[in-house]
Amino acid sequence: MQTAVGLISGGLDSCVAAYMAREDHNIEVKTGVTILYGQRHDREVSSAKRVCAALGINHVVLDVPLRDIIQRSSALLNPSEALPHDRAQSAMTARVPRSYVPGRNTIMLAIAQSIAEAYEYDHIITGFNAVDFSGYPDCRPIFVDAWNHLARYATKRGYENNAITLVAPIINMAKASVVYHGIRLGAPLGDTWSCYEGGALACGRCDSCIIRRNAFRENGKEDVIEYAV
Amino acid sequence: MQTAVGLISGGLDSCVAAYMAREDHNIEVKTGVTILYGQRHDREVSSAKRVCAALGINHVVLDVPLRDIIQRSSALLNPSEALPHDRAQSAMTARVPRSYVPGRNTIMLAIAQSIAEAYEYDHIITGFNAVDFSGYPDCRPIFVDAWNHLARYATKRGYENNAITLVAPIINMAKASVVYHGIRLGAPLGDTWSCYEGGALACGRCDSCIIRRNAFRENGKEDVIEYAV
Repeated sequence: MQTAVGLISGGLDSCVAAYMAREDHNIEVKTGVTILYGQRHDREVSSAKRVCAALGINHVVLDVPLRDIIQRSSALLNPSEALPHDRAQSAMTARVPRSYVPGRNTIMLAIAQSIAEAYEYDHIITGFNAVDFSGYPDCRPIFVDAWNHLARYATKRGYENNAITLVAPIINMAKASVVYHGIRLGAPLGDTWSCYEGGALACGRCDSCIIRRNAFRENGKEDVIEYAV
Repeated sequence: MQTAVGLISGGLDSCVAAYMAREDHNIEVKTGVTILYGQRHDREVSSAKRVCAALGINHVVLDVPLRDIIQRSSALLNPSEALPHDRAQSAMTARVPRSYVPGRNTIMLAIAQSIAEAYEYDHIITGFNAVDFSGYPDCRPIFVDAWNHLARYATKRGYENNAITLVAPIINMAKASVVYHGIRLGAPLGDTWSCYEGGALACGRCDSCIIRRNAFRENGKEDVIEYAV
């Protein structure tokens, strides 16, 4: 069985991706990594911990202190900006949403690559998804391809023709499919957190809540988490 | 004039690269970034500060807490391992030196890319050098090419056909040429630090000291810094 480090955000996508890696791709996720980059709340961290506990794997939290430097560039990092409500429409408008954080996924992959090389894992598993999130440039299949090209030259492992490869099991799935596979595999979807707000309950109003809730309904179910409205 | 973020390590190469960018490539380095990844000493940080002061630019220090996670993988991060003396020979032996830090340059570039996008800079300037350091996979021209391919897909800027490009002005230069250009441009070489040890004076014995000192001698000069031996 091959091994991997998983980028576990605490959200639904990375959780289902890790379960699919193990159950469908025969890749054992050995370590889950949550990378903090100045998010407005750390509700995701406790969700990521629970997902890793359910997977029975080691969990590492790393803080990359980018907030002060790039705060002005993303609504997710800037407390003075209203939370974005443009993502649900982004597939149609082909704009990059305000919740885009400059170069974030490249930083996350670079750190995961270092961990994978140090621990001699074969892969990086991510929950990148290009469908509902298609406004994010660094979630696209072409970005994954370019990353895997880079990986051949970026590390000692690549130099030895044994590059660490990025696997994105759900990249081409609509959110309803992601939910379908999560339910099929018994993934702990109730432990995941998708809401942009950090409240006790998911707000039910932000783009992320709307997309998630609709995805459960497309599967003929109600979401397993509670919503404020 | 185009603009850039410069990766400023405190060493000689990144200092000369920044001066060459400004004087020879007409690229203004606006911000210098020093990334800490668990080095054994921070002598480099004070050198980097002095280089940025000489350039008259903003200096940012970022700490990526990788030490605990990848300590076992590199002699540079592991205090229980003797410092490496295999680099001067690496070009001949084609081995990756023990001082290689897994995936380090990819992390540095990823962070620099985020800063460049947030501040709307055009380029990243690095002192990557493939000649004396040819055992490092992530210093090679092919790595730079692969990075610039990735950059087209990794950011909003790339999505808008205005990718942030990596410029490595000294990548194909022998160290003697780097020193030559540093002297020609009046770069503050006396403020730079190359030694792997963190002593008051450069040790004069590690690979890095030997390569640097020889490079000055090939220019018919003695190094402007003092050595312990």
